[in-house]
Amino acid sequence: MHTLPIKTAARRQFVDITAKVERLLAQEDITTGICYLFCPHTTAAITLNENWDPDVQRDMSLALDDISPQRADFKHAEGNSPAHVKTSLVGSDHFIFIKDNHLILGRWQGVYLAEFDGPRTRQLYIKFSPD
Amino acid sequence: MHTLPIKTAARRQFVDITAKVERLLAQEDITTGICYLFCPHTTAAITLNENWDPDVQRDMSLALDDISPQRADFKHAEGNSPAHVKTSLVGSDHFIFIKDNHLILGRWQGVYLAEFDGPRTRQLYIKFSPD
Amino acid sequence: MHTLPIKTAARRQFVDITAKVERLLAQEDITTGICYLFCPHTTAAITLNENWDPDVQRDMSLALDDISPQRADFKHAEGNSPAHVKTSLVGSDHFIFIKDNHLILGRWQGVYLAEFDGPRTRQLYIKFSPD
Repeated sequence: MHTLPIKTAARRQFVDITAKVERLLAQEDITTGICYLFCPHTTAAITLNENWDPDVQRDMSLALDDISPQRADFKHAEGNSPAHVKTSLVGSDHFIFIKDNHLILGRWQGVYLAEFDGPRTRQLYIKFSPD
Repeated sequence: MHTLPIKTAARRQFVDITAKVERLLAQEDITTGICYLFCPHTTAAITLNENWDPDVQRDMSLALDDISPQRADFKHAEGNSPAHVKTSLVGSDHFIFIKDNHLILGRWQGVYLAEFDGPRTRQLYIKFSPD
Repeated sequence: MHTLPIKTAARRQFVDITAKVERLLAQEDITTGICYLFCPHTTAAITLNENWDPDVQRDMSLALDDISPQRADFKHAEGNSPAHVKTSLVGSDHFIFIKDNHLILGRWQGVYLAEFDGPRTRQLYIKFSPD
């Protein structure tokens, strides 16, 4: 299992980690298999989405703020309940197929760490399993 | 890895693909294992939900439009940011257990391609792994 | 494959199942591997989130009610469309890495059955795969 540290720079941020995951994968020798990604945090998640136009991540961040806003009646003392909700919606665990030692992503697909309560240094757990 | 083409017929649509996945699985010989489903698109996703009453899909589509509406301040030029948001919420990657060469789904569970920006021809990637 | 019955006690409830999954895992002998969790229901899901402050689950439940409210124009006769929507948002299938026969969770992470239409007895399907 690999541990990939990711430094986030803002309260909310989508960090494209595709190249970093590919760099880890390059150390292996996997013809076909599966890449498993796991985020061990409760206010950050992992998602696959468009990597061409950065406005997609910007719009997604605005949308998630609307979907999971702060509420006066939230009780969690740390005040970051919206970040916890976003984490459960977006998901902590995702997988991608591997072929010829590369991730098989769609033409517009990238892998993102979704920071919802930064800036922080996050750790991702990554496992590559040959078929 | 199998590639399953799915033609969608509307802007937003839930297409029940359970029988198609089962047909691909029937070509294999897996006593127990896991079926991995991956959607390589950024405005379509995969989900498991009720396959008995089609009103569930209709209601779900209405609900998702409310959850991720169009906004005047979205910047993504293609105008389909709501579809990108829905994709990250519903998820591109899902798995189902296999027993006796069949998917082990709950009594009311079906597998759906969730189209958020159709109509288009979508491709799903599917892998069956024996235990 | 293991089947884990979980009795829920309320209409909406997050049940911490981490210890129960660990107890099943203790019967195995896995140095490194993956734990796969699957919920075969369409009005309950599985999620990973904070297990320290129970207010996080309370706040998350409130937030999900806002995200997926009842609507007058929903047609599904059972009246539980909001629970179906929540299920697709939170997800039926999740995985966690295993090391030294234990789940590798983050410091604040627990595994939850998310009940959206209880109280009921739910069944979870669980598989442990060595690497």
